[in-house]
Amino acid sequence: MAKEIERKFLVRDLGAIEGRLGARIVQGYVAAEPMTVRVRIKEAEAFLTLKSKGGIERDEYEFPIDLRVARELIERHCGGRVVQKTRYRIPNGIHTIEVDVFEGHLAGLVLAEIELDHAEQAFERPDWLGEEVSHDPRYANSALAVAATPPFPAYLPPAAAC
Amino acid sequence: MAKEIERKFLVRDLGAIEGRLGARIVQGYVAAEPMTVRVRIKEAEAFLTLKSKGGIERDEYEFPIDLRVARELIERHCGGRVVQKTRYRIPNGIHTIEVDVFEGHLAGLVLAEIELDHAEQAFERPDWLGEEVSHDPRYANSALAVAATPPFPAYLPPAAAC
Repeated sequence: MAKEIERKFLVRDLGAIEGRLGARIVQGYVAAEPMTVRVRIKEAEAFLTLKSKGGIERDEYEFPIDLRVARELIERHCGGRVVQKTRYRIPNGIHTIEVDVFEGHLAGLVLAEIELDHAEQAFERPDWLGEEVSHDPRYANSALAVAATPPFPAYLPPAAAC
Repeated sequence: MAKEIERKFLVRDLGAIEGRLGARIVQGYVAAEPMTVRVRIKEAEAFLTLKSKGGIERDEYEFPIDLRVARELIERHCGGRVVQKTRYRIPNGIHTIEVDVFEGHLAGLVLAEIELDHAEQAFERPDWLGEEVSHDPRYANSALAVAATPPFPAYLPPAAAC
């Protein structure tokens, strides 16, 4: 098992991803109670991932699976519980911030995630990171998959210049 | 994907398994909605299995996983949703009947399953097979895992001699 320790934030402006290439991700949920069971296709790779419920710390089990099997699971068994996004990886000190730009029914939503070694670990906080939403269940990907529209706020526009 | 086409029966008497060696199975459920996501340890092997809901016909996806990972999933993430049983395989014409003798909170429950090529396929029906319970959701393993006691009837005693 891996421990996933992750904090999640809204994004204030998209300058950090400008000119970067992102990775296309399509993921669906075959089950969500009590563990979330996710099928993810990331470019040419596919994974089945089990995660415990939680805010910042979750148990995570990841199994590589055949790409065709992953496609079939998403098409036949995820119903509408599917998220499409492009993920950009931004180096940030000793960490990497992943910025997810959502599409489809979640168009307009942009979230940043930073994976830490422990929940209290300090990290450099770039000024484009907005409000923290780690503990807001509406921003969990499994909840976003079944949301009709992005939660509000989805994206924090930069503060107006004085 | 495999299609699992399976009919399930109560068992009238246990003569068919006498003298046979069974395989010990421990299985737990990490999620049950909408797919059931099962972790099964069968002797030295372990599998993660996704099944769609249904009576006789279900979509089934099976992934071999590491035995230690399976043990950890059952201990940490299946809560009380665990079934222990011994499985006996009985040749029956061109098919095999699997007889599951349950233990623990399900002690006394014995079920027989026969896997078919299609839902209407005929098979030899030995006289020790009792009432069919394929469509009774109480006898699904995922439901049995969370039942307090075996459903009634759990086992059909042989009819009294005339």
